[in-house]
Amino acid sequence: MDEFRLIGAIARILGQRPDPRIEIGIGDDAAVLRVPGARVVATTDTLVAGVHFRFDWSRPADVGARAVAVNVSDLAAMGCRPLAALLSYELPPDMSDSAVLAVTRGIATAARHWDLPVAGGNITATSGPFVVALTVLGIPACDRVLTRAGAQPGDAILVSGPVGGAAIGRALLDRMPDRVRTWPAPVRAYRRPVARLDLGVALARDARVHAAIDISDGLLADLGHVLHASGVGATLESSRIPLHPGARACARALGLDPLVAALSGGDDYELLVSVSPEGAAQWQAQGMTRIGSVTKGRGIRIRGAGNRAGLSGWRHR
Amino acid sequence: MDEFRLIGAIARILGQRPDPRIEIGIGDDAAVLRVPGARVVATTDTLVAGVHFRFDWSRPADVGARAVAVNVSDLAAMGCRPLAALLSYELPPDMSDSAVLAVTRGIATAARHWDLPVAGGNITATSGPFVVALTVLGIPACDRVLTRAGAQPGDAILVSGPVGGAAIGRALLDRMPDRVRTWPAPVRAYRRPVARLDLGVALARDARVHAAIDISDGLLADLGHVLHASGVGATLESSRIPLHPGARACARALGLDPLVAALSGGDDYELLVSVSPEGAAQWQAQGMTRIGSVTKGRGIRIRGAGNRAGLSGWRHR
Repeated sequence: MDEFRLIGAIARILGQRPDPRIEIGIGDDAAVLRVPGARVVATTDTLVAGVHFRFDWSRPADVGARAVAVNVSDLAAMGCRPLAALLSYELPPDMSDSAVLAVTRGIATAARHWDLPVAGGNITATSGPFVVALTVLGIPACDRVLTRAGAQPGDAILVSGPVGGAAIGRALLDRMPDRVRTWPAPVRAYRRPVARLDLGVALARDARVHAAIDISDGLLADLGHVLHASGVGATLESSRIPLHPGARACARALGLDPLVAALSGGDDYELLVSVSPEGAAQWQAQGMTRIGSVTKGRGIRIRGAGNRAGLSGWRHR
Repeated sequence: MDEFRLIGAIARILGQRPDPRIEIGIGDDAAVLRVPGARVVATTDTLVAGVHFRFDWSRPADVGARAVAVNVSDLAAMGCRPLAALLSYELPPDMSDSAVLAVTRGIATAARHWDLPVAGGNITATSGPFVVALTVLGIPACDRVLTRAGAQPGDAILVSGPVGGAAIGRALLDRMPDRVRTWPAPVRAYRRPVARLDLGVALARDARVHAAIDISDGLLADLGHVLHASGVGATLESSRIPLHPGARACARALGLDPLVAALSGGDDYELLVSVSPEGAAQWQAQGMTRIGSVTKGRGIRIRGAGNRAGLSGWRHR
């Protein structure tokens, strides 16, 4: 069973019956909960050493900063402000205390940057790899919470910044670690993702913005989540995808196609939104890039991408 | 560094400055957060295969039920009602989908029992053992939240039910798995811990109850947490500790001292509270057992325990 089928099977077992306490449950960037007199948003992300990061690719402080950024990015995609976080560590026997504390300093610095106090957590031993998991609670910044559902045919699809840099930086660290100083920009894009919190809050306040997601799995995969949740399709213009400017030459040196990295790479944490045609111009004026349109017909069509092997799985969806 | 020193070092790095959003931060059973117009309580617990459970000791549904019970028990210790949960899995390559779904069914059944809807979560691959982590949010059942701090010299120390059964059941599964059917009660105490949610809520409503904790690490260890948070000590009467009734004969067969299991075993999930002398009688009439008193002098004195090796670390604190 692939990951999304398994999540579907799990969600069915957990019985997603309507519950007055749950406004949005399994399947969006965060859950939205109703408390008497308030709404609270909750999201959790787990980073496993060797799966989501490697200590030979990132410094401990980078790992801590990433754990915070990926969770804050989920709040950004919902248009919410941070409330508090719970921090969980799984510590293997060979993990030094100083390494744990270095990761923690990365978390502390990033958490202060996002005004996110850490209010509790859990520490356990493990026979497996080091794991850092963060659960972040937030509060909607306005009446509305932005979700993945709501994209409408005719909407413009906008992305908040360049994509592909993180995937190319990761490939550089993997395949040409001695050239890391030659291309610091993609390496930094990979090591230090930036959550678009203020932008997400501003987007949520504009009713013309119909749906949003953060690009963690990859632009196409995350666009696919929005389209699936909204029951629509999309056409993308490959020439409009904003490739990470510092990553193009690096991609060439690695023999990578920067467009494939931008569309499928992931770890970018820019926001992808579906906006009414009337609203698109304003957000473009504020630096977002229009990369396509929402269509009635399902699936994703990519114009100008040729017959790239890395994208073939997507073009025929 | 031992676990508690490490937690202390982590808490210092995370900078527990006063924050209007955090009523209770790191160091209690759950965090208490202030949202405009409401309070939300958050706790998280991680169960690692091979560390907190074993699939040859517990069925998958037991593991799921345990993940829910240990978190609900933290809410119980604070006197809070469940709001919603986030579920996280780390899945090793050799974990079958059917095993994951069997654990999930255990979670679903237990979550329904506690009226705890699962609102989201996370799934990731791991090269390590299977991990199930739950973050549970709750709402205070009354104006007050019960904490570990607040025990006063002269208070009675009460426990809500028998202890030691889980530790003896675990030892039986470990050392005499062929005798599991002979002593089903301790095995069940280990496999299916019960959170004392209604009791915790009732205790929080009684202002004479000054402090509470759930017994997860072991009676002495958890009492130690209360005493440390409250800045007091305690005297226990070993003859009054309610030993699990079905576990005594089993302990003898295993060559275990049931008193040591009761004081140091853990995994019982009964509540331990510090109550004013005036309040104690009422809670004793409702089935709680008085096992000692809070003292001004620090440390734990255990009367009638003799010179047991398993407790020596405690008697001299």
